[in-house]
Amino acid sequence: MTLVTHAIRNGVDTEKMFATLDLIKAQPELAKFQFRATNHWIDGAHNRSTIKAFYAAGGEDTTRSEEFVIDAGEPAILLGSDTGPNPAEYLLHALAACLTTSIVYVAAARKVELTSVESTLTGEMDVRGALGVDDEPRNGFERIGVIFRVSGNAPEEKLREVVERARKRSAVYDIVTNGVPVALEVATD
Amino acid sequence: MTLVTHAIRNGVDTEKMFATLDLIKAQPELAKFQFRATNHWIDGAHNRSTIKAFYAAGGEDTTRSEEFVIDAGEPAILLGSDTGPNPAEYLLHALAACLTTSIVYVAAARKVELTSVESTLTGEMDVRGALGVDDEPRNGFERIGVIFRVSGNAPEEKLREVVERARKRSAVYDIVTNGVPVALEVATD
Repeated sequence: MTLVTHAIRNGVDTEKMFATLDLIKAQPELAKFQFRATNHWIDGAHNRSTIKAFYAAGGEDTTRSEEFVIDAGEPAILLGSDTGPNPAEYLLHALAACLTTSIVYVAAARKVELTSVESTLTGEMDVRGALGVDDEPRNGFERIGVIFRVSGNAPEEKLREVVERARKRSAVYDIVTNGVPVALEVATD
Repeated sequence: MTLVTHAIRNGVDTEKMFATLDLIKAQPELAKFQFRATNHWIDGAHNRSTIKAFYAAGGEDTTRSEEFVIDAGEPAILLGSDTGPNPAEYLLHALAACLTTSIVYVAAARKVELTSVESTLTGEMDVRGALGVDDEPRNGFERIGVIFRVSGNAPEEKLREVVERARKRSAVYDIVTNGVPVALEVATD
């Protein structure tokens, strides 16, 4: 029982974590994942994504019992009616969530018990780009600022190392800082 | 009344849209926006973002009456308990939502009445990168596939032009394909 108790750190089952890492080292083909989202337009700036199925570890993962449904929108100044966060805000959320989970997992692996992880993200945008008014400003964020406040049972230097390792391994940080090729196909009825 | 009726197309107030574009052309300094998200860790892969305030058109926007609260998680195979979509799935949602709203707005501006906009997004990831098992695969998606199905009262060629223009102006498409500089600061208690 003592072993089981200690295996859970920061809410992460570290025995399962190390077993997963060993399995993927032994069988790298299990590391191929595919995540998915389907989206449909509702009205104006209101659209909705449904997220459930994904491919992992050599097959379709069927462990999720329910689908996630998330709504997007725009505020009034961008011609919406606040039916949800706007897409750029969702991107900030994706980045915050990925860095946070990376911090929590790295800390669990390094025997650091965290007490608090908070972050504030800001994205600067000149909307002339996205609105098509001017070709000079880019469409997306010019820059993103992230401030983390992390507390736990480790010296400041170790907490900073945890955050740095998490930054180096975060999937969404990689996507947002380095970009990803996107292939877009269109079917019309 | 006829004028008002026709001003709303695809749920978008096109009179307000063109007035906004004219205003920003006349006063480009109003185009500086800042979007924000704050996030706090709950347990394991579960964390939560709060989204409300933003800066727009020369000041803090105070039109949003309530904050948006969105939860992230991971499925069991990635050591979570499905407390929400995972961060990479949120990124796909952000991209789908931004392209969809861009399509709807461009169509409204070009007098195309849409009847349906649906999309399916897939992101391929070798999780050895993000899990720190191997340095060779990148952490994030290797590629993203987007398939749009668009219907409306216009010939196929015009619908395709709308999608192409939307792609060229989408903020999140720009971020995801081209990347953005991210400045990360850490405070420890």
